[in-house]
Amino acid sequence: MRETIRIKRDGGTLTRERIEAWIGGVTAGSVPDYQSAALLMAIFCRGMTRDEEVALARAMLASGRVLQWNDLGRPTVDKHSTGGVGDKISIALAPWVAACGAAVPMISGRGLGHTGGTLDKLEAIPGMRTRLDATAFESQLRRIGVVMAGQSPDLAPADGALYALRDVTATVESIPLIVASILSKKAASGTESIVFDVKCGGGAFLPELDRARELARELTHVAALLGLRASALLTRMDEPLGEAIGNANETAEAFAVLGGGGPSDVVALTRALGVSMLRLAGIARDGADAEARLDGALRSGEALRRAEAMVEAQGGDPRVVADPSRLPRAAVETPVAAPRSGVVASWDARAIGEILVELGGGRRRKEDAVDHAVGIRLLRKTGQAVKAGETIATVATREGDEGAREAVLRAVSIVDGGAAAAREPRSLVLEEVTA
Amino acid sequence: MRETIRIKRDGGTLTRERIEAWIGGVTAGSVPDYQSAALLMAIFCRGMTRDEEVALARAMLASGRVLQWNDLGRPTVDKHSTGGVGDKISIALAPWVAACGAAVPMISGRGLGHTGGTLDKLEAIPGMRTRLDATAFESQLRRIGVVMAGQSPDLAPADGALYALRDVTATVESIPLIVASILSKKAASGTESIVFDVKCGGGAFLPELDRARELARELTHVAALLGLRASALLTRMDEPLGEAIGNANETAEAFAVLGGGGPSDVVALTRALGVSMLRLAGIARDGADAEARLDGALRSGEALRRAEAMVEAQGGDPRVVADPSRLPRAAVETPVAAPRSGVVASWDARAIGEILVELGGGRRRKEDAVDHAVGIRLLRKTGQAVKAGETIATVATREGDEGAREAVLRAVSIVDGGAAAAREPRSLVLEEVTA
Repeated sequence: MRETIRIKRDGGTLTRERIEAWIGGVTAGSVPDYQSAALLMAIFCRGMTRDEEVALARAMLASGRVLQWNDLGRPTVDKHSTGGVGDKISIALAPWVAACGAAVPMISGRGLGHTGGTLDKLEAIPGMRTRLDATAFESQLRRIGVVMAGQSPDLAPADGALYALRDVTATVESIPLIVASILSKKAASGTESIVFDVKCGGGAFLPELDRARELARELTHVAALLGLRASALLTRMDEPLGEAIGNANETAEAFAVLGGGGPSDVVALTRALGVSMLRLAGIARDGADAEARLDGALRSGEALRRAEAMVEAQGGDPRVVADPSRLPRAAVETPVAAPRSGVVASWDARAIGEILVELGGGRRRKEDAVDHAVGIRLLRKTGQAVKAGETIATVATREGDEGAREAVLRAVSIVDGGAAAAREPRSLVLEEVTA
Repeated sequence: MRETIRIKRDGGTLTRERIEAWIGGVTAGSVPDYQSAALLMAIFCRGMTRDEEVALARAMLASGRVLQWNDLGRPTVDKHSTGGVGDKISIALAPWVAACGAAVPMISGRGLGHTGGTLDKLEAIPGMRTRLDATAFESQLRRIGVVMAGQSPDLAPADGALYALRDVTATVESIPLIVASILSKKAASGTESIVFDVKCGGGAFLPELDRARELARELTHVAALLGLRASALLTRMDEPLGEAIGNANETAEAFAVLGGGGPSDVVALTRALGVSMLRLAGIARDGADAEARLDGALRSGEALRRAEAMVEAQGGDPRVVADPSRLPRAAVETPVAAPRSGVVASWDARAIGEILVELGGGRRRKEDAVDHAVGIRLLRKTGQAVKAGETIATVATREGDEGAREAVLRAVSIVDGGAAAAREPRSLVLEEVTA
């Protein structure tokens, strides 16, 4: 290990054998954490070649079980987002794409810090289970075409061990480590195709566009070298996605999309990712065909029914899909009034995410519990005109919370109409990246 | 700690408070090794400002006891070498400088890898103790003016903990970490002045001249900021120093210097460092005065007697100083014959150091025992003419060892007389660096 660390520390390239020996030792517990920590930091500082990334992802994949979907009769496709604030896209997207004929074996994560997690949002549904054993996972995928569950500890266990260490050693934001971590888990889930939603902007994990683009490029190329079909959308995460930020309220907003409603940005991004998934899975021959299939599944109600079937199969109350008012909601709603008239110039996504954590709806540490019922709703988004005193947001809490109201006000910027109006409306999807 | 690691990882500067919190946590055992390992690697990759180095050295110094030499009536001065092959300089230097009126509270180390250590060499003397408690250390320094002992674990204990971690995480060769480590220990020993022998070349810890010069500069400047008078000599470590490489044989060679003999390179470097120490300690007003004082102590036999007193005080047989044949010596001497006629162009110091480890005279791991009696003797040094078949080196082992003979031959390069003769004879001391 010392020589392995030394090579990377000096900017050298690690052989496949060295990477396999490291990950084998991590899995077996024979490499001490302090040596892995030093190597992780050396990788953070010196980077990795694409060959090293592939070898690392492969070694982490090989550390556990790899699911196989041989005779499903449907192509498998998954989506992975690098995380943001208000990102509830998966919850509508997975059943919708399944309704179009794909099988979606989606393994999701939990929120940490200012970013939310799909599992937390799904667990706002009364009774909903996200911990499924292999048999339940497989039979549900065969029957309904969609499963959304947490990672089983026997898939890429080396990633689990290393991720915990990265978290406490400030080595999370390293592109090679992110790529290997994501791809080892995704390849272990047995999907044939994967679409990445790589966020950039203030609320994203990697705020700079260049870094996000690099991540998208590495994710798609390394995925291809691992034998997956992959593409990525680079999308903006400057302001929160949609109106709802929380857990139950985000799930409600996602299901609204399947009922033909939902905020326009959430609808647009869900559709854009759906088009990519259907094309990548070979179900749609082009973008127009994919759009038509998505429209059909929406109009026929098949997307909504697929979501209900999924919720029911996982022990949840399926009635919440058509009637989100059945989801928990904190009793006290505090309105946030615009301090002046003008146009909303920005909502600080990271600040909003942190307010949610403060309210108990997110996690500071991995072991924290999450309150599904609290949340924030943005009633005016960037570019919209507001009048002084008008309610621009609401905060739902169990008891009144004046601090949250103040904090929400600090997260919004309202400017004179002229200046903001002069801004070009920007698309949420900035670029598509393919391998 | 996570934020501290993140700041350094991103190339930022750590405040004194952050450095103190880290080192406090290392000393108390409350900062886990994996976080220190990540931070050490971040420091390795991103470096430290001089202010950070001072804060780190101070925090490590403050982690333990600091010796005080208030009413010694003599100025204290120490020497520290960054380590090499055949470097027995301290053994003659410390008593010699003490004989000139200085007090030398020298804390020495052990060999590891291809570099030797003064404590191992001293312990070749039958009965010699290098583990002294504070009372014994102090009374000997008052009485004789010289002590050479190992580091007591209550001096800079944070350095002990971090050094062990650096060793297993490939973060040893970092200038800020080396500087803080050396200076925290040296300042804890209570010396007022210190001369550094910073080696460069193939057998040195930092082979490149530029890096060695940077280390010398940081050592002297940070020492000055810690309130020590300091200077450094940059010296060559391409070929082993002197003729003897081992433990007992190196001690014998050092004592030979005090008897007026010894190889010319060993004599020259011992004198150069002695001149620096006497000037720094304020005992000599200039180089010529220092030389005269060294000459006087040698001619009068006071240097030799001081070495005998030191050996006796530390439980060793003082007769070895004047009669090194009393030191242990492995019975079998294997001659190494020149394979061709010509001029010795180079001896590979690192290779020779590694042969000694192979013979059992050095350590691969810290816990290894050392055989004091084995060794190598180089009879022809760089620049000297040799005839084919002539003995250029001998290897002393407990049983015959043909492998060592072969290995010694691989470490020497003999070229035609003309080419080597054209080389400028180079001084061992390349530069002097002062704060």
